[in-house]
Amino acid sequence: MEYFYIPELSAEIKEIEISGSEVRHMVKVLRHKPGDEIFATNGRGEEFRLIITRIRTNRAGLKVVEVSKGEREPGHKVALAPAVLKGDKLSLIVEAATELGISEIVPFVSSRVIGRLNPVKLRRMEQVAVSGLKTALRTVLPTIKPVRNWNEFLDRFSDYERVVVAYEEEKDRGVDQVLEPDAKSVLVVIGPEGGFTPAETEAMTAAGGRLFSLGPRRLRAETAAVVATALCLSRLGDLK
Amino acid sequence: MEYFYIPELSAEIKEIEISGSEVRHMVKVLRHKPGDEIFATNGRGEEFRLIITRIRTNRAGLKVVEVSKGEREPGHKVALAPAVLKGDKLSLIVEAATELGISEIVPFVSSRVIGRLNPVKLRRMEQVAVSGLKTALRTVLPTIKPVRNWNEFLDRFSDYERVVVAYEEEKDRGVDQVLEPDAKSVLVVIGPEGGFTPAETEAMTAAGGRLFSLGPRRLRAETAAVVATALCLSRLGDLK
Repeated sequence: MEYFYIPELSAEIKEIEISGSEVRHMVKVLRHKPGDEIFATNGRGEEFRLIITRIRTNRAGLKVVEVSKGEREPGHKVALAPAVLKGDKLSLIVEAATELGISEIVPFVSSRVIGRLNPVKLRRMEQVAVSGLKTALRTVLPTIKPVRNWNEFLDRFSDYERVVVAYEEEKDRGVDQVLEPDAKSVLVVIGPEGGFTPAETEAMTAAGGRLFSLGPRRLRAETAAVVATALCLSRLGDLK
Repeated sequence: MEYFYIPELSAEIKEIEISGSEVRHMVKVLRHKPGDEIFATNGRGEEFRLIITRIRTNRAGLKVVEVSKGEREPGHKVALAPAVLKGDKLSLIVEAATELGISEIVPFVSSRVIGRLNPVKLRRMEQVAVSGLKTALRTVLPTIKPVRNWNEFLDRFSDYERVVVAYEEEKDRGVDQVLEPDAKSVLVVIGPEGGFTPAETEAMTAAGGRLFSLGPRRLRAETAAVVATALCLSRLGDLK
């Protein structure tokens, strides 16, 4: 199924003209013609069934046939907070986590963070979030929050019903021991390549975070992020 | 913790001289000196504590101080069978799945497979399996099986106590409904980018495979493979 991201769409709109890369993809790659039916989301919770009414160079007219809420959003809000990582790792994480069903990305900086987020990387994260949205046929584009420094990050813990932190030194408790299956909103925290300091772990615990283990094998941060997201969504009943 | 892969090691060996890329990494990157202690695995279930006795250009002498079984292997055998995928996707999957704890990779070809496995890609898969082994501080290097054609692949189902197949059209059952927590050996099957045909799904079911869902959101094959592996290992109690 082809699925387009057209943020200009809203429930009030009956007809719209669009331009840009989605039109190029529609016409040049998928070879759509006037009269064809397509599906799109505005990334704000709505799905649209559309008919292509006309195609001009790089522009297409669309008529809204049906608006719905879609049926594929998870029942729980799961936000992912990865430390800023080196290279392109955050993009890998954002794309997979968006497919899985997260609602927010909350990048943060802790003392052992060595990666940097520049505008190019941020733009790339936004792009792959859109890719993940379209792959997964979702209707809600995850929000990418501004990078939080450590204290700002801790202050945010109270925005969520439950905060769980993947932590290498935790030996006893897995996801099922720290996350209730009926938690309405969850923040899943993944540290940087070098892990958290003991003081940071204490501060997160004091702020209400619960430490959990992903098993005795050491994981790359990007593997840990995707797996922790999946285990939390599964625990909440949103991966079946 | 630094961790080396030295397949020449075995429980009978007391001293050994090694050469090649592991030595370069040991000396040039990690700047080890004679007298330093390092840890290594032979990838066949054993972990070694070693002392560096001497360093020559590209060669190092090592003395075995202690041999153990390591403590980080999962308690269950989980094999991953991904369809041959396009580009470098199998390598991404092999590396993450190795970190997570799989015992085997069983690539197969079904009717909708469009990717190819050439010797370069196979070599790359072997390399990232070693990377995953070292990242995860494992002692067992997963076996990468030869590519199976469809009938050979089905014949292998009987090698495992349970075979589970991630399938987009399955709507009811998640991993927990198809996998018993005490299964000793499991094969986790992931289809190609275009999915399985109905006839293939029937054939897998007839051969004892159980279909399960990863939720209503469409996932890239590489995301599905890593997530399915994680959910199965978690179900077996091996990710906490």
